[in-house]
Amino acid sequence: MNILDHTFEEYLEIVKAFHGSEAPGLIIGGFMVDTAIRNLPEGITYDAVCETRSCLPDAIQLLTPCTVGNGWLKIIPLGRFAIALYDKYNYDGVRVFLDAEKAKAWQEIHAWFFKLKSKEMQKQESVIREIGEAGSGILSIRRVIVRPEVVKKIHKGKVTLCPQCREAYPSDDGKVCLACQGGNPYL
Amino acid sequence: MNILDHTFEEYLEIVKAFHGSEAPGLIIGGFMVDTAIRNLPEGITYDAVCETRSCLPDAIQLLTPCTVGNGWLKIIPLGRFAIALYDKYNYDGVRVFLDAEKAKAWQEIHAWFFKLKSKEMQKQESVIREIGEAGSGILSIRRVIVRPEVVKKIHKGKVTLCPQCREAYPSDDGKVCLACQGGNPYL
Repeated sequence: MNILDHTFEEYLEIVKAFHGSEAPGLIIGGFMVDTAIRNLPEGITYDAVCETRSCLPDAIQLLTPCTVGNGWLKIIPLGRFAIALYDKYNYDGVRVFLDAEKAKAWQEIHAWFFKLKSKEMQKQESVIREIGEAGSGILSIRRVIVRPEVVKKIHKGKVTLCPQCREAYPSDDGKVCLACQGGNPYL
Repeated sequence: MNILDHTFEEYLEIVKAFHGSEAPGLIIGGFMVDTAIRNLPEGITYDAVCETRSCLPDAIQLLTPCTVGNGWLKIIPLGRFAIALYDKYNYDGVRVFLDAEKAKAWQEIHAWFFKLKSKEMQKQESVIREIGEAGSGILSIRRVIVRPEVVKKIHKGKVTLCPQCREAYPSDDGKVCLACQGGNPYL
């Protein structure tokens, strides 16, 4: 079963090079992106939503033009294993999710998804083999309209120097930058 | 001036393929990642912090093992043009930022950074040429210790079926999933 233009094995290689490991979630994510794209009207310009921070964003970044850095991929951390691709002009799109009911038929995938086995007991090769066999058979899809206010770009406005740290920041953030307002992540 | 193992021109190609355009921020980001890696002790395992959602996360994802999906890159949206790479075991690392004082010497970079010209007036080729000439000359670096509580992984705990949407979610999120608690991004 192919993932867009890639064979399953090619996709595993791409995943490993980018993500560092053949993470099951990212491999299923390949089939999710493939399914979503096949169900979008051809030739539209689409953006992406990812409902979890784990693994799935990388499938979108590897297989679509949408990345975190270009802003076309928006991560909304809801803890659900789902993505949506949608027309960036009218917000009309498709949502693809791992369907727990369908995954029941696949012992290893089911155990992985619900974390029923310890890391030591769960054999990654077995999960990956099942994912390759199951392909899009464990996924469901529905049409969605994305709420524009959730995904719309925030215009950054003017850039100014923070009087405290002397670095540039969006002046809309306040009199000093967010780091100097208490968000500094360093000791 | 090289960016890790890539010539400047090679890096531009990589950027365009992944990000869709030769965004100035991502090109400067290449020199930032290069500078950070050169200033880390050799052979350590590092994670990454990015202080903005714009462009820079993609430089980290392209040039290091850290991605959003594997969790080794954490985006802390502070609106500052800075990254940090740090030892994942003791949080000791380096922070690299675009130094507004140094960038003053480069007319096009300065105008781009502070958004002094309209998109029509700012010629992308001129900015990119200056970035290639300036290289790491517009960057500053300082040693940092990342606050462990800001970057530590949240263990997701048990996974269960949401009684409302029938999808799997981390049971620590509550009796129903975050989407069903009001976070649903679809109409």
